[in-house]
Amino acid sequence: MTFKEKFQQRIERINQALNIKYSDASSCAYQHNIHEAMRYSLLNGGKRIRPVILLEVTEILGGRTTDGLSLACALEMIHTYSLIHDDLPAMDDDDIRRGKPSNHIVYGEDMGILAGDGLLNGAYELMFNEVLMNDPTLLKVQACSTIATAAGSKGMILGQVADIKMEERSVASLDYVNKHKTGALLEAAFIAGGYLAASDEIERLSTIGQNIGKGFQIQDDVLDVIGDEETLGKPIGSDQKNNKQTYVDLLGIKGATEAYTTCYQKCIQELEQIPNSDFLIELVHYLMNRKA
Amino acid sequence: MTFKEKFQQRIERINQALNIKYSDASSCAYQHNIHEAMRYSLLNGGKRIRPVILLEVTEILGGRTTDGLSLACALEMIHTYSLIHDDLPAMDDDDIRRGKPSNHIVYGEDMGILAGDGLLNGAYELMFNEVLMNDPTLLKVQACSTIATAAGSKGMILGQVADIKMEERSVASLDYVNKHKTGALLEAAFIAGGYLAASDEIERLSTIGQNIGKGFQIQDDVLDVIGDEETLGKPIGSDQKNNKQTYVDLLGIKGATEAYTTCYQKCIQELEQIPNSDFLIELVHYLMNRKA
Repeated sequence: MTFKEKFQQRIERINQALNIKYSDASSCAYQHNIHEAMRYSLLNGGKRIRPVILLEVTEILGGRTTDGLSLACALEMIHTYSLIHDDLPAMDDDDIRRGKPSNHIVYGEDMGILAGDGLLNGAYELMFNEVLMNDPTLLKVQACSTIATAAGSKGMILGQVADIKMEERSVASLDYVNKHKTGALLEAAFIAGGYLAASDEIERLSTIGQNIGKGFQIQDDVLDVIGDEETLGKPIGSDQKNNKQTYVDLLGIKGATEAYTTCYQKCIQELEQIPNSDFLIELVHYLMNRKA
Repeated sequence: MTFKEKFQQRIERINQALNIKYSDASSCAYQHNIHEAMRYSLLNGGKRIRPVILLEVTEILGGRTTDGLSLACALEMIHTYSLIHDDLPAMDDDDIRRGKPSNHIVYGEDMGILAGDGLLNGAYELMFNEVLMNDPTLLKVQACSTIATAAGSKGMILGQVADIKMEERSVASLDYVNKHKTGALLEAAFIAGGYLAASDEIERLSTIGQNIGKGFQIQDDVLDVIGDEETLGKPIGSDQKNNKQTYVDLLGIKGATEAYTTCYQKCIQELEQIPNSDFLIELVHYLMNRKA
């Protein structure tokens, strides 16, 4: 089986598990309203990187698939809520997400706020009802707590605040934003899987997660510029959103490319110390070689 | 000690516990930004009805105070997030909350959204880190799950959606909105306290919570009209927000007063079956006799 087939197979497992969330044929029109808005964004064709990682780490280290799959869904629900709220007019004001109208464009701004709230809260309902209600253990609580902390006001939400408030950009300040805004949930995917599997490699999993997050974000900045040059013929650096400086502005394309390559190589080195990590190593290669 | 003194004492316990949340003197300006916005609304002088009930039920039924106090804070954080998001321009568009400028008026709409998200997420961080991390038990998970479900898209969020979408108002449809929007968290306060105390009276606690929630909301409609007449000299029924029908429109002042009195009396009857419930019974009398 090729890597792409293996990846697709794993995405399908996540999508199947997500697809039964909020699919109840309720007789209540209002419940249908909110659940439709939540499902619109939840099933909007993401790459499912975070939940695929969480489930894979859980399984290769010997944790229970049912717990891994539930927690993977919760993590993706949190990621999805953050995208819905980020797209709101008062935030990034984006009308398009993954090639489709944003949640608030389809359902209205009030419903966008509530659909985001519903998915964030729903992630925790799922943790209590699917993961913890059936045999609560300290390790499971640690897995859930890791995700909650990563999503919160010392994690992803803090990263969003920093991104909004930051005026002067340096490599250190970009690192700060990305570590929290993008990195925290990716790192949590590795660590939470580790806890579910009672792994003693939590620190290594944390290092891998941090480096994937950082590499991914620096690479995004490079791809934005290269993508522009190839598809639009624009000069380098002219298309930055909101005039915010990027890694490419600060390091140049060559410097930024070296920086993200170093991050990914560190991931691969660390993953090689973990048994049965073939798919995860291939996933890092896939990310390193992506063109968009 | 008078009832008011006893009530104030309990409010103080909750306020002290809430006051140390997010009070860290972080060297990070962005963390300070978001935590200041969260604290502004969290410490904005609410009556603390929900957390006072949760803690009282936990204690009179024999549960651990530390768990009760932590879960009470989490519940108040969820209530506070819902007020911040409700006040946003895309929702009820209220500039004033408890006599002070709303969160988004002070900190901006983007920070208002994020402060709400931070408090909602923070409630669950608190449940994992304070309540469950230390000796996870099924009963504690049930207490947390009760609150999460009450807050979610089949509880409070659903009530908000119904309130936004509902066109024709009947007593049944007002009951539906209030049961979810206001009632769910009040009911959860009673039930969660019961679980923390391993009570076998969960059903009775649920009945009490539902009736307090319903009584409170019907009474609010009556007080709105009576308050208007006394203070503004306006005719009955002319000051309804957004032209939404209220219980007073549908039942008249006399009918609505009878309806909420019946709810509160049901609460008192049921509370009399629970040992050491003197304070809670006095609390219901206090609510029944309130003028605002």
